[in-house]
Amino acid sequence: MIISMKKSATSEQIEHVKQLIESFGYKVHKSKGTERVIFGAIGDERGKEKLTCLEAQPGVEKVIPILSPYKLASRETQEDPTIVDLGMGVTVGGKRLLIIAGPCAVESREQILDVASAIQDSGAHMLRGGAFKPRTSPYAFQGLKQDGLVLLGMAKEQYSLPVITEIMDIKSLEVISDYADCLQVGARNIQNFQLLKELGRIRKPVLLKRGLSTTIEEFLMSAEYVLSGGNSQVILCERGIRTFETATRNTLDISAVPVLKEKTHLPVIVDPSHGTGHARYVAPMALAAIAAGADGLMIEVHPKPEEALSDGPQSLRPAEFKAMMEGLRRVANAVGREI
Amino acid sequence: MIISMKKSATSEQIEHVKQLIESFGYKVHKSKGTERVIFGAIGDERGKEKLTCLEAQPGVEKVIPILSPYKLASRETQEDPTIVDLGMGVTVGGKRLLIIAGPCAVESREQILDVASAIQDSGAHMLRGGAFKPRTSPYAFQGLKQDGLVLLGMAKEQYSLPVITEIMDIKSLEVISDYADCLQVGARNIQNFQLLKELGRIRKPVLLKRGLSTTIEEFLMSAEYVLSGGNSQVILCERGIRTFETATRNTLDISAVPVLKEKTHLPVIVDPSHGTGHARYVAPMALAAIAAGADGLMIEVHPKPEEALSDGPQSLRPAEFKAMMEGLRRVANAVGREI
Amino acid sequence: MIISMKKSATSEQIEHVKQLIESFGYKVHKSKGTERVIFGAIGDERGKEKLTCLEAQPGVEKVIPILSPYKLASRETQEDPTIVDLGMGVTVGGKRLLIIAGPCAVESREQILDVASAIQDSGAHMLRGGAFKPRTSPYAFQGLKQDGLVLLGMAKEQYSLPVITEIMDIKSLEVISDYADCLQVGARNIQNFQLLKELGRIRKPVLLKRGLSTTIEEFLMSAEYVLSGGNSQVILCERGIRTFETATRNTLDISAVPVLKEKTHLPVIVDPSHGTGHARYVAPMALAAIAAGADGLMIEVHPKPEEALSDGPQSLRPAEFKAMMEGLRRVANAVGREI
Amino acid sequence: MIISMKKSATSEQIEHVKQLIESFGYKVHKSKGTERVIFGAIGDERGKEKLTCLEAQPGVEKVIPILSPYKLASRETQEDPTIVDLGMGVTVGGKRLLIIAGPCAVESREQILDVASAIQDSGAHMLRGGAFKPRTSPYAFQGLKQDGLVLLGMAKEQYSLPVITEIMDIKSLEVISDYADCLQVGARNIQNFQLLKELGRIRKPVLLKRGLSTTIEEFLMSAEYVLSGGNSQVILCERGIRTFETATRNTLDISAVPVLKEKTHLPVIVDPSHGTGHARYVAPMALAAIAAGADGLMIEVHPKPEEALSDGPQSLRPAEFKAMMEGLRRVANAVGREI
Repeated sequence: MIISMKKSATSEQIEHVKQLIESFGYKVHKSKGTERVIFGAIGDERGKEKLTCLEAQPGVEKVIPILSPYKLASRETQEDPTIVDLGMGVTVGGKRLLIIAGPCAVESREQILDVASAIQDSGAHMLRGGAFKPRTSPYAFQGLKQDGLVLLGMAKEQYSLPVITEIMDIKSLEVISDYADCLQVGARNIQNFQLLKELGRIRKPVLLKRGLSTTIEEFLMSAEYVLSGGNSQVILCERGIRTFETATRNTLDISAVPVLKEKTHLPVIVDPSHGTGHARYVAPMALAAIAAGADGLMIEVHPKPEEALSDGPQSLRPAEFKAMMEGLRRVANAVGREI
Repeated sequence: MIISMKKSATSEQIEHVKQLIESFGYKVHKSKGTERVIFGAIGDERGKEKLTCLEAQPGVEKVIPILSPYKLASRETQEDPTIVDLGMGVTVGGKRLLIIAGPCAVESREQILDVASAIQDSGAHMLRGGAFKPRTSPYAFQGLKQDGLVLLGMAKEQYSLPVITEIMDIKSLEVISDYADCLQVGARNIQNFQLLKELGRIRKPVLLKRGLSTTIEEFLMSAEYVLSGGNSQVILCERGIRTFETATRNTLDISAVPVLKEKTHLPVIVDPSHGTGHARYVAPMALAAIAAGADGLMIEVHPKPEEALSDGPQSLRPAEFKAMMEGLRRVANAVGREI
Repeated sequence: MIISMKKSATSEQIEHVKQLIESFGYKVHKSKGTERVIFGAIGDERGKEKLTCLEAQPGVEKVIPILSPYKLASRETQEDPTIVDLGMGVTVGGKRLLIIAGPCAVESREQILDVASAIQDSGAHMLRGGAFKPRTSPYAFQGLKQDGLVLLGMAKEQYSLPVITEIMDIKSLEVISDYADCLQVGARNIQNFQLLKELGRIRKPVLLKRGLSTTIEEFLMSAEYVLSGGNSQVILCERGIRTFETATRNTLDISAVPVLKEKTHLPVIVDPSHGTGHARYVAPMALAAIAAGADGLMIEVHPKPEEALSDGPQSLRPAEFKAMMEGLRRVANAVGREI
Repeated sequence: MIISMKKSATSEQIEHVKQLIESFGYKVHKSKGTERVIFGAIGDERGKEKLTCLEAQPGVEKVIPILSPYKLASRETQEDPTIVDLGMGVTVGGKRLLIIAGPCAVESREQILDVASAIQDSGAHMLRGGAFKPRTSPYAFQGLKQDGLVLLGMAKEQYSLPVITEIMDIKSLEVISDYADCLQVGARNIQNFQLLKELGRIRKPVLLKRGLSTTIEEFLMSAEYVLSGGNSQVILCERGIRTFETATRNTLDISAVPVLKEKTHLPVIVDPSHGTGHARYVAPMALAAIAAGADGLMIEVHPKPEEALSDGPQSLRPAEFKAMMEGLRRVANAVGREI
């Protein structure tokens, strides 16, 4: 930590802050600039709140952290990329991209089997489908719940695709774990720390979706919760942040891909369906994500978007998904990846 | 809902959309402008996803909702303000303002009793203190948990102050209900819909904190979750949104106060401690909130902010809190309120 | 400046960076933490780009500035508040608040005289009115230009109110200076540095409106442009920043008031009309601004908002303005100010 | 326009609003829903402020525009893409991508010639270089001004590259036009409407950079200013918007590419240097932009970024640029484009 004193700080205030830093167990390094005194507090600053509280001390101007607050998620701790195994021969984090596709919500047997068949045919590796749905409105369709999981399991068997579905609370952890090959934490739960702690205790891959206003550092801290619980199988998913722009549902932060790939060894995928909110922008943004270095994609596909019970406007039809996959293969090859 | 067709839409597309709207059970009102056809879909549009999915239909340009999606929270449903009873003679929503104060986290018996004594002495009506703490870092202090609740209960008895504390998950609902007079849902859980549903079933007041990127409409939808579960004792709390500005921890959206007071009958309070993140900005923003029409405040007070286990930089010392309360009384009177 | 080296930096890289800092004319202060080397570069860092460019150097993790980049605008340079004299006995920055009111645009002789009469009657001190209007659309009303200035001058004489109007480019500097007692730089021109430089050369007060995405630090740098040109009569005006929230036209950042009052000696006023965009939120936000410590307000008033050529929805009627002024007096007194 | 009345509107208010709409020259279409009355105002709504001012009318809930406010910039007005001719055989908007590269600022004869030689060698088509520099600080390097233009002209001759440079005010329009093949309007001037009007009168291509908080609709309105002045040679450039994320200097909004390509016929290019602010993220974001359908790129290249007078941290070294160009060719081919 760097503690910068005010220009007007008295020598008593300066001395007192020095003593406080030492009393917290840090070595102090004092540096006198032309205008003010600056302290370096030497020692592990992670999780140490006390230094930041020095801001409340008279004469202190600001306290600036130097180290990133995450450790297990950091590239400094692990150079090599983490490869997450999703079962049935599907992995993410290596040369081969991971393409997850499927409807926003499982709606019926026919719907999920139709989609599974179509996406498998187009070369996708994993099936998505919500059974427990977080909805802004209490009056909106909340998902088929356990019935949805059973239908997902059916589609998994029939089309040999591992499945991913969202977990919204600890209560349903067991039943979802029975059916899903990967548990997804939605954007709204990315700082539901109780849930993250529980997911640190299981031995299934976990996919974390970045929240609408989660910084990259906070996103990695959420991953740190799962990692520090003992579960190293974590996948990160950029899905759009909230900005002033309303032409898209969210602003898909593609630059989060190279930033995350630099800072962490965990695989990074992108969800252009939620990121844009409109089917016609999904394919260009999927190509962009892969070109920027993403390890995979999560795409919403629905046989009849105009009749979907949720997220219809952003869902691709099977034929649109197929066309996108063809373009994707070319871009993947152009950047040294494969599908 | 308004469904606007593209200028280039064919008459077949226009006719097909008309039939779809009717098939969803709506009366159609067609209007031909100089450039394009616009449909009005007449019928209750709340919770009806189908109309928004029309965007996926060829020829459709956009779908525009007219009604607000919340009903029970709306001023149109209830004109008179809701007065929430917090016990021990304390209410919020009427002429008297509600001043909640206390430390970010309960840290020790001495700390919580000291604060309770000080804030009661300065005229606060309710004691806050976190027992279960949501922390960005898994390595940070996570709260005293049940021990913290016991200490809160002790302070409540000794100083006759009802208490409020944060609930982070459904599991701790029972134990927290045993001790707290009001349950607080933190900014990070404002769209934890499972938790909101459970809180709709209890008979205790619930305080909802606006999330960092929650729109006012979404905030009211979260309230609607609790209200539609049967619990009408809901308090809303503005506590800062996330913007590009970094001089303050968050940007306290004071204008949310008049907007919320217009749209809903629920009481609205403001938390300038989290909203600004720096003790020196708390008092001016507290005055501003009351001047703008807020029904109360939630203020962090700590006997020794420089030694706090969390949120030290934004906590007032008891003497600072006392000085603020004096200014507050004058502003409250100036706008026809009392403390 | 603090230059933090990567954990993986080689000793050659560390040595090279040290030499570069010295070659830029700075004294180097090296500090070896538990994980990485940190350099302090001692010397005046204002306007020195070279140090920030060190980020491009191998082995460097990040470069962190310590000093604020503005000097003349800083409270460290001048403790006492600047009082700006607007003529006709009107000042801003002292105990008395400055209330500016008037229409968005001067539209006709009758309109501007009506408004001037009404606001003077309610106790406002200064008349606003746009003659050259910045409009998002090239097809919208662009102002009466010089004719508008003449009308403003007429109203000034008749009602003894100094006037303020917006300057959009250097070309109209002379003519506007002939009529206006204070020149306003609009939010969209806050980083029009050529214009700011010219305004540094004149001897008239300048009011700077914060841009929609201007940080407080950048805002002060824009003031620094005018101040460093030799014009010390600068007033700052918060008028809302752009965020994700759409219930208000912008998000009025009331917390900018205490932050600016801490960092600079310049007077700070608030424009709740542009800040909220809706007449019904103007009065509560005006009260909030004064409660938070603002030195004044700028309010849009129009005799018939529903017929205004611009900004009708956010303009108060004269009777509404009068009612607001009454509430304002009470709040001003409550915080030790007067109108 | 759609005018939605409040549920509580009286029949007098409803009738009065109807008459007002008609008095503004619109045909009225009244639609009675289950809860409220909605009016459609039929007629060209572009540039018509009067309808939006109806919000000030008692009983009106909100006013919703249907048409986009731009006309000449719209795909509805011109289906075919505009191809802008930059001279020397270089165009943008067709199959071939436009690659612009060069330093942030022209610093010396040697520097600009070195860069020009390097980028030409790597296959770039156009040289950028600032002569008049907009700088946040009045104490920072402000550009070589006319000398910089002369150096740019020299590099143009020697390496047969058309050149682009920024125009900051109307005063320098003539001298810049003498040297530049395309005039760039910077992000901070995107709503400097006086400047845009002047650029509508010249017969040189103009490149408009999106502002930090400019919506896509406002961006197109700025283009409309130039187009409506008679200059149809307009290029749009996405260069990052301001959000809460600080890991990158701005958030490069890649999704603006498909949105703009849908809404307008004008060419769209991307500047990943300003968009990210860090050299190490430039190449991945350049690839992403092309994959998403951009018509070109603008890239900062400097022979010695660590000694640059501005924007060093985001400038590529010539060797890095060369490597990026190779990757770019592969991605361009993958999406059916060429360099």
